[in-house]
Amino acid sequence: MVSPSSGSASPSVPTRRFELLTLGDELLLGLTANGHLTFIGSQLGRRGVMLNRNVTITDDADDIVRQFRESWSCADVIITTGGLGPTCDDRTREAIAAVIGQELVFDSAIEKTIADRFARLGRKMTPNNLKQAYRFARGEVLPNANGTAPGLWVEQDGKVLCMLPGPPNELQPMFIEQVLPRLAERGYIRAREAYVQLRTAGIGESALETKLQPLFDRYGDALSVAFCAHQGQVDCRLSSPSQRLSDLQLQELASECAGLLGEDFMCFGHDSLPRVCADLLRTHEHTLAVAETATGGLLANAFTDICGASKFFAGGCVCYSNESKMQLLDVPEDILAQHGAVSAENAVAMATGAAERLSASYALAITGFAGPTGGTEANPVGTIYVALYSPHGVWSKKLAYPGPRSTVKVRAVNAALDWLRRELIRTHTHAPTPPCREIGLLG
Amino acid sequence: MVSPSSGSASPSVPTRRFELLTLGDELLLGLTANGHLTFIGSQLGRRGVMLNRNVTITDDADDIVRQFRESWSCADVIITTGGLGPTCDDRTREAIAAVIGQELVFDSAIEKTIADRFARLGRKMTPNNLKQAYRFARGEVLPNANGTAPGLWVEQDGKVLCMLPGPPNELQPMFIEQVLPRLAERGYIRAREAYVQLRTAGIGESALETKLQPLFDRYGDALSVAFCAHQGQVDCRLSSPSQRLSDLQLQELASECAGLLGEDFMCFGHDSLPRVCADLLRTHEHTLAVAETATGGLLANAFTDICGASKFFAGGCVCYSNESKMQLLDVPEDILAQHGAVSAENAVAMATGAAERLSASYALAITGFAGPTGGTEANPVGTIYVALYSPHGVWSKKLAYPGPRSTVKVRAVNAALDWLRRELIRTHTHAPTPPCREIGLLG
Repeated sequence: MVSPSSGSASPSVPTRRFELLTLGDELLLGLTANGHLTFIGSQLGRRGVMLNRNVTITDDADDIVRQFRESWSCADVIITTGGLGPTCDDRTREAIAAVIGQELVFDSAIEKTIADRFARLGRKMTPNNLKQAYRFARGEVLPNANGTAPGLWVEQDGKVLCMLPGPPNELQPMFIEQVLPRLAERGYIRAREAYVQLRTAGIGESALETKLQPLFDRYGDALSVAFCAHQGQVDCRLSSPSQRLSDLQLQELASECAGLLGEDFMCFGHDSLPRVCADLLRTHEHTLAVAETATGGLLANAFTDICGASKFFAGGCVCYSNESKMQLLDVPEDILAQHGAVSAENAVAMATGAAERLSASYALAITGFAGPTGGTEANPVGTIYVALYSPHGVWSKKLAYPGPRSTVKVRAVNAALDWLRRELIRTHTHAPTPPCREIGLLG
Repeated sequence: MVSPSSGSASPSVPTRRFELLTLGDELLLGLTANGHLTFIGSQLGRRGVMLNRNVTITDDADDIVRQFRESWSCADVIITTGGLGPTCDDRTREAIAAVIGQELVFDSAIEKTIADRFARLGRKMTPNNLKQAYRFARGEVLPNANGTAPGLWVEQDGKVLCMLPGPPNELQPMFIEQVLPRLAERGYIRAREAYVQLRTAGIGESALETKLQPLFDRYGDALSVAFCAHQGQVDCRLSSPSQRLSDLQLQELASECAGLLGEDFMCFGHDSLPRVCADLLRTHEHTLAVAETATGGLLANAFTDICGASKFFAGGCVCYSNESKMQLLDVPEDILAQHGAVSAENAVAMATGAAERLSASYALAITGFAGPTGGTEANPVGTIYVALYSPHGVWSKKLAYPGPRSTVKVRAVNAALDWLRRELIRTHTHAPTPPCREIGLLG
């Protein structure tokens, strides 16, 4: 959800209409998620522009011609993805050339780049790859460092056409390194981030708005505020579309908001909750171990996309069976017999076992019923126990989430990470919590 | 990629144009992935219809009117998602009513359903929820068992309009239980699955096509074949759009293909690789343990969406540090010192340790460099060692994947699972492999 608090939702430079045309039967058949919309939409959003429309169509040449003609008549900037491959069903170049009345010309420089790439990889170039060496007669070529098909750039009739290859590892660097700077040079997007973003965790959207509104009121309509909520986190984006507030003023306001929010403030910018935890752990030279049942590896996996995670992440255990809890984490059999696997006591025993086995200073444990089956009267589906082990004590919290299994898992992981984040902040900004080894049941 | 081998890619009933209109700024800003396209696209695909177009637009009422007018003029079936919420920025109902010239009428039966829902949840109904009790004067209501906004169904001008609420846990059951049957009744989609699907693993698309083509050739253009490749798996869809081949004939052909493919054949239908492994493990009363470094929990997590996984999944360890490998999996220090963590020897030691610690009959271990940093001359980024422990022996395989970290991780997990699948099939269809405890380096 995106809810503008005041002013317009997206601070924008002179209004131009941006359209994204994503091509491919595999998108329409639901075989592949439309990651290009997520990526390009968020990159443009950061530069103050909201895509006006995304249209996904088949690989059929007639469909491409029909849709492109309509889009070209009403958009100022059209970005296309896919359809630049070497095979005969990649007809996008030809279809679009026909609509904009351009000739496709063979470019021997592109041919050489493609041939060099094949030679470097020790593979044989097939004749159909030569198709990728055609470009628009009046247009530019966007070199592709990660594949054979270059991107294409055309400026014509006061409009921009930018055609990008489909594979994400080719498209994404090309978009960031070549497309964004070109759009910024022409004044179509901001040269830098268009807003100052505060990320928060553990506070709801309306509570956040209520807390910050008195600060916002001082700036009237010079300030634009948008809230974006996602999985237990709410981002707050501050901008000044009229540019009556300078970047420095926005940053100062953001700092003031952060101070007011205390621990609910997570970070400025775009860092994820696992990354914020990782930075806190690294800064203070702590290590973390994790133990999971219901979330089945998702908590451990949260850290594995962070390069150098082995510096602070000691490891994790996924323990479905009671035997594995005893074997890997030294959970006492009595605890499982007396309280069951979905209990505060077991969560605490799992966190303690993980920390001790892996010699980590902090540990998180998650156990519960993610659904759709399982659950008891006392602990229905959606019940999650999280435990946090720290040098100052070990605690457990009972949580309950509605919704499908995948949502329960993600929210449980986020709740565990946010608890760790708060504990690390508390420990390193205030006097440490007094040592306490008893089970404190919170929430 | 979807590549038709012969005939048309999608077997379809009388050609009608299907469009999906997804509404929401959060989609265009890249804050939320467009899961509705993936879900609805694949559901319709199974019934023999490919969406012709998906258009994503903002929540702006003018945009909705403009786009809906264009779509309504050229599509036969329009499905919209989102914009049915209670707040003032949910303007879809009103905008669309204006275009199709319908009146919105207050429906006290809907009001009662909403009020009952609030009462049941012990929450207070706010006045703006009453907005959701309006429906088209000439239209039907699709009850919503999981939320307040009912879906809306209109048949007019020989076209169908179907408006669905945005939350996936409300939309998905409504689509399956109410929308698909309605579309099938009217002959817009097939009443049952429109094709017979064979899933394969570990065989490339062109090798698969070469192997099966002689069987397909017997049926000429009565048969339509489409291949869909995704992350090391290729699906093959057999259908007969002209209905000259009966369902039984298609099933017999599919069985013949499966026989010819041997171990490369994974399953009929839509089961995932983890589920196929799970079924094999359960059928033969085996248990599985896993141990991971580079994939960081992804292998363990593959099983956690399978209900009742605790029946066969003993547990898993994510071991980033050498210490954790020794502590949790009894990997001998000598192996790490002599061969390093990214080695066949360590993979074998991890698998063995996991199986022994967790008393599992089978174990998988994955270690490697997923990138972007790390790697050595002998084991560059993308190098993965997988080990498989079974009652008959323990082996290791060296693999190499190009591409970004996320791709390397997914492909490594799939390769490990596919190895387990093949070993289970071999063991239970042929005489068991002779006992062997040495390290067999394959691949």
